[in-house]
Amino acid sequence: MSTPGDGPVELGLELAQAVLAAQPFSVHVGAKVTAFGDGAATLEIPVVPELLQQNGYVHGGVLAYAADNAITFAGGSVLGPEVLTGGMHIDYVAAAQGELLVAEATVVQASARRATCRCDLFAVDAAGARTLCAVAQGNVIAR
Amino acid sequence: MSTPGDGPVELGLELAQAVLAAQPFSVHVGAKVTAFGDGAATLEIPVVPELLQQNGYVHGGVLAYAADNAITFAGGSVLGPEVLTGGMHIDYVAAAQGELLVAEATVVQASARRATCRCDLFAVDAAGARTLCAVAQGNVIAR
Amino acid sequence: MSTPGDGPVELGLELAQAVLAAQPFSVHVGAKVTAFGDGAATLEIPVVPELLQQNGYVHGGVLAYAADNAITFAGGSVLGPEVLTGGMHIDYVAAAQGELLVAEATVVQASARRATCRCDLFAVDAAGARTLCAVAQGNVIAR
Amino acid sequence: MSTPGDGPVELGLELAQAVLAAQPFSVHVGAKVTAFGDGAATLEIPVVPELLQQNGYVHGGVLAYAADNAITFAGGSVLGPEVLTGGMHIDYVAAAQGELLVAEATVVQASARRATCRCDLFAVDAAGARTLCAVAQGNVIAR
Repeated sequence: MSTPGDGPVELGLELAQAVLAAQPFSVHVGAKVTAFGDGAATLEIPVVPELLQQNGYVHGGVLAYAADNAITFAGGSVLGPEVLTGGMHIDYVAAAQGELLVAEATVVQASARRATCRCDLFAVDAAGARTLCAVAQGNVIAR
Repeated sequence: MSTPGDGPVELGLELAQAVLAAQPFSVHVGAKVTAFGDGAATLEIPVVPELLQQNGYVHGGVLAYAADNAITFAGGSVLGPEVLTGGMHIDYVAAAQGELLVAEATVVQASARRATCRCDLFAVDAAGARTLCAVAQGNVIAR
Repeated sequence: MSTPGDGPVELGLELAQAVLAAQPFSVHVGAKVTAFGDGAATLEIPVVPELLQQNGYVHGGVLAYAADNAITFAGGSVLGPEVLTGGMHIDYVAAAQGELLVAEATVVQASARRATCRCDLFAVDAAGARTLCAVAQGNVIAR
Repeated sequence: MSTPGDGPVELGLELAQAVLAAQPFSVHVGAKVTAFGDGAATLEIPVVPELLQQNGYVHGGVLAYAADNAITFAGGSVLGPEVLTGGMHIDYVAAAQGELLVAEATVVQASARRATCRCDLFAVDAAGARTLCAVAQGNVIAR
């Protein structure tokens, strides 16, 4: 999968989609990767009843999954496909409801072995209005 | 649900199980609450193929869900049922594989409005051996 | 200190500087607040030998102090002066060396009682070049 | 500094004290390392006026420094002296006041390159009573 050149290996969107499709849990949650490359990745998750908690909002665990995985993909876009997430912090800032959950992660700094990323998580309603519902920060490590 | 007396409201295990059963995402993941009360809660998740990532390990997002929810329940055991998790940090320390994922959360300090909790996450194999695969820390806030 | 109107209380830069000057530890470290208001705060710390670790870089504890305090001030700019920081996460991304440490914190979301903030920490050299050396995220709570 | 055998390199308390004494910021804060080895480290900081914030409590930045450094030393006790802290999360759970601040860090899991640690921070009064005032979790990386 490596590309010639002196820069870090980059995956394309198609390959990122193939990796996500190979994650049974991501399929179970219904996640899609809609942007990938250059130190950024976006995951989108249609909000279906299976993803809610007891009050009708998207479960915090779905947001935690989305932050974790968006951060991993963003890190992978600069470190290459053989990465794992070392750790992640998420703050929940608003109840998540709507039609779509969007997790946008970006690399803020990367070395050859580690990429530190931030992630914004938005709930999008039927009219397309976005509400920030969580923010996260985490580290991706090359294996 | 409040009880008389000067202590914080406590939920029993049966009520905790009812709350978990009312969370569609927890049902979707297959989580069970197996211990609850006195500032502690344990969630167990049988490892099924839907919960894995591309290399056959339990997906980090499942661990993040389990940490988030175990922490919420532990906090709820001292703050009462009307709680939400403000934020959570998780460090992944070993690949999770086996038959069962166990998340054990305990309150380390609580005020009337906030409970700070830690959580250990173990993968348990067929022989019952436990491997620590993640550790987490988070805050639960009374609404 | 409250101002008329329906918005959150705001402190001005002069008051923020007075609060910082009333923190003996901030004086001990040599911190200054150089910007304050509208959900943002900047702390600057001249790099002197007392702030280093054994390899000649700024000690990670100085960065942790700066992140903590910049986040508290940013939160205070929207929540008012009676605030405390509930918790904070910091990732160190590069060794900090130079003449000045700058911590820039911004509120990403605030309710009446809680402000969630991010903070970027830069080391600035004699020529004014900035190097990102740490990123942080934390929560400020109104008392 | 390495010792024979197949285990990780260990530093002794004397060497740990020498490392701390070589950190000008630790001297500036007045920290001492009072226990070190086998995946654990304890830092103690006498509470002097220079370490306080505006309300007379120990400044959160002092606690953040102590957590960061205790975690680094605990990690160093299993990874060897050439380590750095990748990141750290701290939750403040009670106002810190008293005569002494104690930070006790322990390794919860370590690989050859990374140690994940937890840290409890206590304020100790004149009678020796300990109050938990913060809890932290962080990662130490071998260079």
